Amino acid sequence: MIFRQLFEPDTFTYTYLLGCERTRRALLIDPVASEVETYVRLLDALGMKLIYTLETHVHADHITGSGLLRETVGSKSVVHRDAGAMCADLLVTDGVLLQLGDIEIKVLATPGHTTGCVSYLVGDRVFTGDSLLIGGCGRTDFQQGDAGLLYDSIHNKLFSLPPDTLVFPGHDYKGNRVSTIVQEMEKNERLGAGKSRDEFIGIMNNLKLAYPKYIDQALPANQSCGRPNMELHG
Amino acid sequence: MIFRQLFEPDTFTYTYLLGCERTRRALLIDPVASEVETYVRLLDALGMKLIYTLETHVHADHITGSGLLRETVGSKSVVHRDAGAMCADLLVTDGVLLQLGDIEIKVLATPGHTTGCVSYLVGDRVFTGDSLLIGGCGRTDFQQGDAGLLYDSIHNKLFSLPPDTLVFPGHDYKGNRVSTIVQEMEKNERLGAGKSRDEFIGIMNNLKLAYPKYIDQALPANQSCGRPNMELHG
Repeated sequence: MIFRQLFEPDTFTYTYLLGCERTRRALLIDPVASEVETYVRLLDALGMKLIYTLETHVHADHITGSGLLRETVGSKSVVHRDAGAMCADLLVTDGVLLQLGDIEIKVLATPGHTTGCVSYLVGDRVFTGDSLLIGGCGRTDFQQGDAGLLYDSIHNKLFSLPPDTLVFPGHDYKGNRVSTIVQEMEKNERLGAGKSRDEFIGIMNNLKLAYPKYIDQALPANQSCGRPNMELHG
Repeated sequence: MIFRQLFEPDTFTYTYLLGCERTRRALLIDPVASEVETYVRLLDALGMKLIYTLETHVHADHITGSGLLRETVGSKSVVHRDAGAMCADLLVTDGVLLQLGDIEIKVLATPGHTTGCVSYLVGDRVFTGDSLLIGGCGRTDFQQGDAGLLYDSIHNKLFSLPPDTLVFPGHDYKGNRVSTIVQEMEKNERLGAGKSRDEFIGIMNNLKLAYPKYIDQALPANQSCGRPNMELHG
């Protein structure tokens, strides 16, 4: 499998390119609108055709490139049925298998940061979006966020994966690139080392975070696959 | 590819089993609730695991087996996003590719019989549901049926396929099993031999068909993947 971890520095977003070497088919997880030209050049250089863009959720912090990629290279946009992005081409739910050449993707519903959050499991790699971050997790104070639900998702769906499963998050603000399930179970400051559900809810309810910088543009844009307002990232 | 055309005689419904010989994964197109035990026995005998059930639309004449199969063997139900069956696990739209082992399925939106009708193209076989029948087509006088739209779907999406593409319909009432695109272009009584869009609409608006026998039970049941009323077919 061809694999690239791409970084968008304005919003600290990781985007992942996965490609099947045999069929030359590729997918992108959480593409960013401002980076679409870079993705297209990379796909061309690799000789790959983009079939799917997979969203882990409807983002509040950056605008998805899924709509622009659909128009540019004909890829299809994938998101959870309950994410509120009815612009998407393929709406998935927990447990659904997708396949792209020799790559198999299993959808794990991991709501809590938002209602429609999913993680994508590909072999021994899990792409957790904003559900599980390295040493942390996504906030739960907007977009129907629910700290208790996020705790259950992470414990039941992610911490039950094999311990050496590689964790690839949707963001990192400190330059960390990858973790593992067991590292997060042991070291995650909010969720690891046996923190209880009540402790976690207490932590999440007292974060006192600033209002997200781009949320008022990003949310409505992403409900339309990123196409109503392309000015945000120039 | 393993392939079986199965027949349910009470509603003259064809159900199709497609299986990948290498991965032993299978899908069923338009399974009928009353036949689920037969499908499960057949899958067992073939040594195959059912991954998807694909609906061509929300049926008015029989109850889908998709919900029961989901509960029995864990398969996931696939239907068009606009079909009105939000019980489904995977909601698709025009042009989406799905893959099951070595089998590739392309979704062709063919609305007209119902809003959410699709055909599934697999290699040189197209599974047309009630959009295109052998020598005929599905009625357009309920479920948001639209004769003009059906004419456009069949001409633009189906009659544009290679002429020797095999047409496997959702029903046949006279024992016909398969046709081809060119046979339907030449011989279909409603759509073939150069019939115009206006002629087709005139034909469809004057069919004077009886009210469908099972529609009052089948429609609400199928919007819930066939599970609210299992008594219809015993």
